[in-house]
Amino acid sequence: MSGRNGILNEIRRIVGTEHVISSPEDCACYSYDASRMQCTPEMVVFPASTTQVAELLKLANREMLPVYPRGAGTGMVGAALPGRGGMALVLNRLNRILEIDSDNMVAVVEPGVITGQLQKAVSHHGLFYPPDPASLAFSTIGGNVAMCAGGPRAVKYGVTRDYVLGLTVVLPTGSILRTGTRTVKGVVGYDLTRLMVGSEGTLGVFTEIVLRLVPAPEDIMTLMVVFPRLDDAARAVCQITRDRIIPSTIEIMDQPTIRAVEEYLHIGLPTDAEALLLIEVDGRPAILAEDASRIGDTCLRGGASHVETARSEAERERLWKARRAVSPALGRIKPGKINEDITVPRTQIPALIRAIGRLASKHDLVIACFGHAGDGNIHTNIMLDKKNPDELQRAEAAVEELFRLVLQLGGTLSGEHGVGIAKSPFMPWEVGEEGLETMYRIKRALDPLNILNPGKMFEPNRAFFRS
Amino acid sequence: MSGRNGILNEIRRIVGTEHVISSPEDCACYSYDASRMQCTPEMVVFPASTTQVAELLKLANREMLPVYPRGAGTGMVGAALPGRGGMALVLNRLNRILEIDSDNMVAVVEPGVITGQLQKAVSHHGLFYPPDPASLAFSTIGGNVAMCAGGPRAVKYGVTRDYVLGLTVVLPTGSILRTGTRTVKGVVGYDLTRLMVGSEGTLGVFTEIVLRLVPAPEDIMTLMVVFPRLDDAARAVCQITRDRIIPSTIEIMDQPTIRAVEEYLHIGLPTDAEALLLIEVDGRPAILAEDASRIGDTCLRGGASHVETARSEAERERLWKARRAVSPALGRIKPGKINEDITVPRTQIPALIRAIGRLASKHDLVIACFGHAGDGNIHTNIMLDKKNPDELQRAEAAVEELFRLVLQLGGTLSGEHGVGIAKSPFMPWEVGEEGLETMYRIKRALDPLNILNPGKMFEPNRAFFRS
Repeated sequence: MSGRNGILNEIRRIVGTEHVISSPEDCACYSYDASRMQCTPEMVVFPASTTQVAELLKLANREMLPVYPRGAGTGMVGAALPGRGGMALVLNRLNRILEIDSDNMVAVVEPGVITGQLQKAVSHHGLFYPPDPASLAFSTIGGNVAMCAGGPRAVKYGVTRDYVLGLTVVLPTGSILRTGTRTVKGVVGYDLTRLMVGSEGTLGVFTEIVLRLVPAPEDIMTLMVVFPRLDDAARAVCQITRDRIIPSTIEIMDQPTIRAVEEYLHIGLPTDAEALLLIEVDGRPAILAEDASRIGDTCLRGGASHVETARSEAERERLWKARRAVSPALGRIKPGKINEDITVPRTQIPALIRAIGRLASKHDLVIACFGHAGDGNIHTNIMLDKKNPDELQRAEAAVEELFRLVLQLGGTLSGEHGVGIAKSPFMPWEVGEEGLETMYRIKRALDPLNILNPGKMFEPNRAFFRS
Repeated sequence: MSGRNGILNEIRRIVGTEHVISSPEDCACYSYDASRMQCTPEMVVFPASTTQVAELLKLANREMLPVYPRGAGTGMVGAALPGRGGMALVLNRLNRILEIDSDNMVAVVEPGVITGQLQKAVSHHGLFYPPDPASLAFSTIGGNVAMCAGGPRAVKYGVTRDYVLGLTVVLPTGSILRTGTRTVKGVVGYDLTRLMVGSEGTLGVFTEIVLRLVPAPEDIMTLMVVFPRLDDAARAVCQITRDRIIPSTIEIMDQPTIRAVEEYLHIGLPTDAEALLLIEVDGRPAILAEDASRIGDTCLRGGASHVETARSEAERERLWKARRAVSPALGRIKPGKINEDITVPRTQIPALIRAIGRLASKHDLVIACFGHAGDGNIHTNIMLDKKNPDELQRAEAAVEELFRLVLQLGGTLSGEHGVGIAKSPFMPWEVGEEGLETMYRIKRALDPLNILNPGKMFEPNRAFFRS
């Protein structure tokens, strides 16, 4: 092995001196993501091409240097954090939209493109890239693909995996692989594209991404529905889809969330209501009003006390204002929170939310629930002061009980945030011994020296370098 | 190793004597699929449970016995054929629909369920399982998942992979793995579900499949459009989607196909037309007529000479009659055919079809093109008498040129039939050395003794048991 200085010099030769950071103060800027955990890399490297990424990974294998790919650092579970020092590989210089092929409804992009900017660019062609994680104004498409990001629109449009057709991937060993096709159909060999999507930067570094686009919806309508009783709101979510209408979005806010937002914004939200639903339908103008009115009727028959409908951009924005204020509003209740993006089958939402209420009482905690009710993805926020060890302990006990409950209800521990470091200890509960073993075997087959994003997902549950 | 008789006795103990076939005459019934290739297994075994499949695979590993999972044998590329003797593992006793969860729009099925029967069963709940391979009246859902089957409706609805949420898989070593979730969102660990979909029976035997369903479309309309010029038809396909209407189906028939069908059926098809498009739209009744009329106008402006529209089941069936007769009609031109399910980006269809015309002239062949124009999946049928060695040689030369062309046009060698044995020699052209190597590594990681469906896909291009 060369010494660290020799390695740094070689890296500077690959990407250019000005694209390597190695002072601890500068490296500290890349020691965070949105999980609020912290691990500082030894160096931060900004490649500008597939070839440079490949050279860096070959070097890393030779020198046994861990490499941590990173987009904008908006991840919620520490998946991009450099837990073992090494190199943070920041992909934001690979930020070009290479092609928008409007006739074939395909875009080819580099990983550092901001998701929101991609959406804006394709909208100029009358096209639509639906996945809409809350971070979309900042997060990169590469990070979205690595984590298989979701968002409110998944009810109708699915998640990131449903839009990735192909990839250029630098494998952990530094080889360059092209996967997939530019067409929806394509069955030549294993589906390496979808294996890579959601692999959280452990199986490859994406340097080009081929995305499927869809026609932009012609019109959108939004409804805000007040439910005196939470159970009725949860049941209405099922009834709406039972009526064969698939809204693009069905968001829920429970009473603790409503009250926090009202205290924050003072916009006249009904603080005595146990739940609000925010529902959006999109599509052809001719049927949108009918859809909205059918949904409104379903809700009113199901116990809603009030339905408000908006079609213009300004009115819709007013209804969304409360939903968008949730995070800052909750931030005022307690200095910290544990936010779990658990997901259950839609019909289990009432059971889930009732059980969460019991957990809150049992552990003397404030738990606010909101999120994507339409696809069963309920963001469960345990509000706490992490400096209070007793409260933290109660919160952690509640999380464990919550996770067991979610699995009993046929759900998953993460709908869209992923595993990373944060959920690694709980992963065996969901995927089992055989799941861990299978993932571990695939990882070892593609990354025999465990160079790429080590210490994440299943790996802490496995001794990597055993026989 | 035990002798073959000892092995057979052990297998009989696992599944019951009456569920094992070993006489050569009986085994011969399981030596075919729709590829017209033939390989006879040494034994045919019919398990009835996940546990039995697991025991069989453990035994096979101990005895180094190749195992070939098989559904209804409707595959087009020999993917289920027992190329190295061993055991044909027929999954048709695992044929229960275990659950239709209509509120969560999920079905749980065993692999031996016939796809068409599944579609009928879910339709009684107002639900819809969209993938519609031509074989759906016979083929099993397990086979569809193993091959990632497509069909005409992929334009709007996608392919099998888009509907598989989770699997119970017996791994090649005999371990039992549960993958995925019952929800659209779920990002805990690698996406083993989609890795398994389309793995052609080489990575695991599916014993339970969790499928996503969608609401059944409320209404359907069908258009048949006559185009004097083929180029205009191909351009119209793009123009329709450019107008933001996504039909559920856009099928094309070229002139050789039209003429063959007319000679077969005598229903007054326009034999002087270079192309017919059969277009279907589905959805809300309120907009269907508008969609159909917009599509009709687009076609007429784009060079169509005639548009016929049908809404009733009987009228629609009449329009579909010509399309459904294509295979038997082509069968009358020549005793054999080579049918390639190549796929190109929609905009490349005109270039593709022109080039196929040139190939037909150059090699003095009749080539009939029809299929799923909406997703670029053109079934290219080289009509021939396989007993004529000169014609066969010319056909094989044409196939090679066709494949090179498809890849130049940004397409894929198989949209929905898969690789199996038939396309294995050409697979390196599309996935490259790095693709082969990556698939091979994954296969070795999960099937170290190469027990499950050996000799398929990438494997003939790799020496499996090298270091």
